[in-house]
Amino acid sequence: MSEDKTRPTRPDPGRRAILEGSVKVAAVTAGAAAGGLLSGCGEHGAIGEAAAQTRQAGRSAVQAALAKTHVAPGELDEYYVFFSGGQSGEMRIVGLPSMRELMRVPVFNYCGATGWGQTNESRKILTEGLTPETKKFLASRGGVLLNGDLHHPHMSFTDGTYDGRYLYMNDKANTRVARVRCDIMKCDKIIELPNQQTVHGLRVQKYPKTGYVFCNGENRAPIPNDGKTAHDKSTYQCVFTALDGETMKVAWQVLVDGNLDNVDADYQGKYAFSTCYNSEEGVTLAEMTAAEQDWVVIFNIKRIEEAVKAGKAKTIGGVPVLDGKHGSPYTRYVPVANNPHGMNTAPDGIHVVANGKLSPTCTVFDVRKFDDLFDDKIKPRDTVVAEPELGLGPLHTAFDGRGNAYTTLFVDSQIVKWSIQKAIDKYAGKDVDPIIQKLDVAYQPGHNHTSMGQTREADGKWLISLNKFSKDRFLNVGPLKPENDQLIDISGEQMIVVHDGPSFAEPHDATIIHRSKVNPVSIWRRDDPFFADAAKQAKADGVVLEEAAKVVRDGNKVRVYMFSVAPTFSLTEFSVNQGDEVTVYVTNRDTIEDLTHGFCIVNYGIAMEISPQQTSSVTFVADRPGVYWYYCQWFCHALHMEMKGRMFVEPKKA
Amino acid sequence: MSEDKTRPTRPDPGRRAILEGSVKVAAVTAGAAAGGLLSGCGEHGAIGEAAAQTRQAGRSAVQAALAKTHVAPGELDEYYVFFSGGQSGEMRIVGLPSMRELMRVPVFNYCGATGWGQTNESRKILTEGLTPETKKFLASRGGVLLNGDLHHPHMSFTDGTYDGRYLYMNDKANTRVARVRCDIMKCDKIIELPNQQTVHGLRVQKYPKTGYVFCNGENRAPIPNDGKTAHDKSTYQCVFTALDGETMKVAWQVLVDGNLDNVDADYQGKYAFSTCYNSEEGVTLAEMTAAEQDWVVIFNIKRIEEAVKAGKAKTIGGVPVLDGKHGSPYTRYVPVANNPHGMNTAPDGIHVVANGKLSPTCTVFDVRKFDDLFDDKIKPRDTVVAEPELGLGPLHTAFDGRGNAYTTLFVDSQIVKWSIQKAIDKYAGKDVDPIIQKLDVAYQPGHNHTSMGQTREADGKWLISLNKFSKDRFLNVGPLKPENDQLIDISGEQMIVVHDGPSFAEPHDATIIHRSKVNPVSIWRRDDPFFADAAKQAKADGVVLEEAAKVVRDGNKVRVYMFSVAPTFSLTEFSVNQGDEVTVYVTNRDTIEDLTHGFCIVNYGIAMEISPQQTSSVTFVADRPGVYWYYCQWFCHALHMEMKGRMFVEPKKA
Repeated sequence: MSEDKTRPTRPDPGRRAILEGSVKVAAVTAGAAAGGLLSGCGEHGAIGEAAAQTRQAGRSAVQAALAKTHVAPGELDEYYVFFSGGQSGEMRIVGLPSMRELMRVPVFNYCGATGWGQTNESRKILTEGLTPETKKFLASRGGVLLNGDLHHPHMSFTDGTYDGRYLYMNDKANTRVARVRCDIMKCDKIIELPNQQTVHGLRVQKYPKTGYVFCNGENRAPIPNDGKTAHDKSTYQCVFTALDGETMKVAWQVLVDGNLDNVDADYQGKYAFSTCYNSEEGVTLAEMTAAEQDWVVIFNIKRIEEAVKAGKAKTIGGVPVLDGKHGSPYTRYVPVANNPHGMNTAPDGIHVVANGKLSPTCTVFDVRKFDDLFDDKIKPRDTVVAEPELGLGPLHTAFDGRGNAYTTLFVDSQIVKWSIQKAIDKYAGKDVDPIIQKLDVAYQPGHNHTSMGQTREADGKWLISLNKFSKDRFLNVGPLKPENDQLIDISGEQMIVVHDGPSFAEPHDATIIHRSKVNPVSIWRRDDPFFADAAKQAKADGVVLEEAAKVVRDGNKVRVYMFSVAPTFSLTEFSVNQGDEVTVYVTNRDTIEDLTHGFCIVNYGIAMEISPQQTSSVTFVADRPGVYWYYCQWFCHALHMEMKGRMFVEPKKA
Repeated sequence: MSEDKTRPTRPDPGRRAILEGSVKVAAVTAGAAAGGLLSGCGEHGAIGEAAAQTRQAGRSAVQAALAKTHVAPGELDEYYVFFSGGQSGEMRIVGLPSMRELMRVPVFNYCGATGWGQTNESRKILTEGLTPETKKFLASRGGVLLNGDLHHPHMSFTDGTYDGRYLYMNDKANTRVARVRCDIMKCDKIIELPNQQTVHGLRVQKYPKTGYVFCNGENRAPIPNDGKTAHDKSTYQCVFTALDGETMKVAWQVLVDGNLDNVDADYQGKYAFSTCYNSEEGVTLAEMTAAEQDWVVIFNIKRIEEAVKAGKAKTIGGVPVLDGKHGSPYTRYVPVANNPHGMNTAPDGIHVVANGKLSPTCTVFDVRKFDDLFDDKIKPRDTVVAEPELGLGPLHTAFDGRGNAYTTLFVDSQIVKWSIQKAIDKYAGKDVDPIIQKLDVAYQPGHNHTSMGQTREADGKWLISLNKFSKDRFLNVGPLKPENDQLIDISGEQMIVVHDGPSFAEPHDATIIHRSKVNPVSIWRRDDPFFADAAKQAKADGVVLEEAAKVVRDGNKVRVYMFSVAPTFSLTEFSVNQGDEVTVYVTNRDTIEDLTHGFCIVNYGIAMEISPQQTSSVTFVADRPGVYWYYCQWFCHALHMEMKGRMFVEPKKA
């Protein structure tokens, strides 16, 4: 198959200008061209990218692949994709193969639409897991963080595959980990990791269940970070954290050498492992890239648990911390080429790939050898079974369950498909080439993900390449460009790019999960813990939330209870005094799927969402006198525009 | 064509359950089915929606229409769609026909990714146009509003068509109007409208150019709204505002009766006209819907301009205000059925449609009669030339430039296509039926929009129906569902639904503009006024932004100047004292398209975007001691992870 390995000349980023004439024609006649492509009846239908792919993979294969992405109106996608929203701080739910964004789930961000960051329910979630230092820091800043950098969304596992309970994700910007309940698709817990500065890689325990959420500390900093030894880098520490995914509390932390990057877990429930750069423990780019080798750090879960149980951990920042630096029984450091990046366990349950980044290689480990390594029967590098040379800038590897691996090459802007077994054979000295195909992507891919590819049920149908640059792939939208999430059909021999998906900052990572694993509800349960505090307060005030049309005064605190039934609020007016602290509780009594209401007070900066059978509440100081209309800002009825009422804020006597 | 008018039984919202068996099959085999549909080779390819459409419009027409939406990887869309983001407060740029979201433009929201609401550049835009009362109100609330309800994005016109300069849009939640510069696709001006409570309908002057931005006040409230007469509804006022689109200052306001709803302008530059409900001037739903008729209010621009020039306006809230209530020379009130909604001028430059909402009719005006109306030569209703009965809940009407109108029927969940001329003929007594086709949409459509349909260049190719409910049209994502923006091919005799587009709260309205009208840049100009304040401060500090690596202390104010070149910041560390007010200026020196950098300080809640050749700045109080890593959070380079530095916050001496 030597022709398959031909590396096509990568189009110059500025190639749109070169091809301008033909592309303009192509785009203007996109409908006709796509029609031709898809129906296979137009000789001139294949253009640009498609033409190149067609030459390589054959016209009919490309046509069939392109057609697969079409989900006709009213049809459902086959997979959920849970995308991180990167610096936007949100999580996104996308349908595959249509690649349509189905929902944004606010997590580490402020969302004016849903009231995330403003409702009492969300503010509790956003604040209760913060460290005392951060709570104090935020006191003069509105109490909540308004930004985040959401990196790695991963679903909880049972027995090596997704179980539909939770999604976990990290905030690199403010060292937090969040959980989303998959029944309601809302974030229900956020914890700030103590002792740690940033959390980067995050993955979960695959077996017997999640279990642990493994969180890589990245940057090194003193513990505590109080400024006393800030200039002495020898006092800096790096921390590996295991969260309990049920309680969302820190189970234990392990101090390590270097900076941890990405993490994964095995299918046996025994080990977690992280790529680790900056073995130099430097603080500048030059220092961090000086050494020729860094490490993969392997964590022995059983030994760590036993040590914690035996009281060998120090309590720091309120959590048990073990020293896992070189020489400890809890870890092993396996040398790999410097500044490795992605860490990916294959669905075979045996092989683990560390991606080279600055090296053109990936390093393949056999997890069956890790017992011997911890028992000092073998040396660290004896766990390595392959180290194929793949191309420039290998960052992440995904799997198809058929023994093939797909690695993103950031610098080459390619995905390389390679055979794990052939890589092992070559490492063992056989004259074989593990590389099967190299495919251009546009441009600079980071994470990639295959359908169910991080589980033992990898199905080998789809691959997403999360490209950091889109450049000229879409209509120009100004200096800030979208990223480009490309969908690739991997069901056949050849990878075929079938869709370019523009996306806002920054789908850093994604998880593709078959829809059979995910079962959300459409209507809230009235006893949901999400609004239990509101129910408790209502009970104390002698109010039945579902039937409420009542204002309760309690000193200068005023609690306003109302319900909504399209197109009315149960209170069309209420009065408070200037300076009162007002809490408005709205209960949506509608029971019809999708009949969400909103509550928005004009010129008061107040807005929140209330889905069917939900209760939402918001607290504010009524320090602006006058009459202020409130309205339903989630379209609900033909008389939606008339669904409103008046808040009177009685002015202070002069 | 009587068979075309057959109104298909609208699928029950819960129909997914009924069809579950077949739909499941359909979805699982979506690829194959779509392939069949698109290639025309599968007998079993047409299913569900497609099957219904196929029966109505013919298999080959549906196949051709579906294929048109396919934009192959690397091809460009033909149209920009500028969507409002509704309660999300942002504007969105979408490509058509692929319906892919290309970019989010933060406007009336907080965006942790770009730093909108946090950077000095954005905070100036978000605050300088607010009223003094609102500035005072926000002083204890972080200084900026964090929510908005962005409703109607419309591009500036020259001579009856789009000119690519600006987009204007309103915030219903906090009574603001914003402008987006189309060269950089960033919001550059926001103004709060004084004297007004909420701004709902917004459209722009079409001729000779924009010119005015017309803004409908909706809710009635006292002026000033200080609480003194809040309970006396007879003191409430409603305001129509004309902004100067160049200066973004209020040109004039006109007091009116009722509540203004939607607005449009003529192609002659003489009139604007608004639907107007609540002629009862009530404050509850029952009061607001009591009368049998409300109005369309017509504004005579020349008379208003002359009166303002002649000093006849009162200055209220710092702007000239005229009384345009019943009996004034500036307005005419034309009775129409109660609670009318959409207001749409046809591309023929003659006809204007007011949509009935609570009435099953639309009312068609002939703008050529408005001169006589203002000269009292005819009566208000003499301007009406048609009043076709269309169906239940007509909300908005779009046009194809071929004499046809497309009206959304909210209650019927349909789009009705009708002939303007036949409606006129019928109103004149002829026995004709203006209705051409009724098409089911899913579900409850609000605004709709045709390609270039609000200009004299309406091209009649595409229609978007912005449906408020999606219910079971997409994979279940929990109690909060997406909206559904459906794309409809209107190029042929029959409308054909070709795409379901899920979208987050709430694409209230949209404008479809041919790509030839929009020409953004990819690299900032270094002399852009967007960051002129930073340039001015740098000059005062003797700093050249593009070459800066300098910390300037000015009392307890510290200005940190650095530039970025992938993968480095020019400063890899800087020190400040606990309690300092720190401003960080970052200038992105990279000149490569799409090479955006970020600046994010870990555990400090600071993050912003810096696109190629841009300068961004952020100010904060460094009240948390210790060492804090800052990093580039917009992926930029293979060594992006290592692009970081340290901020030392020296602790206060005890």
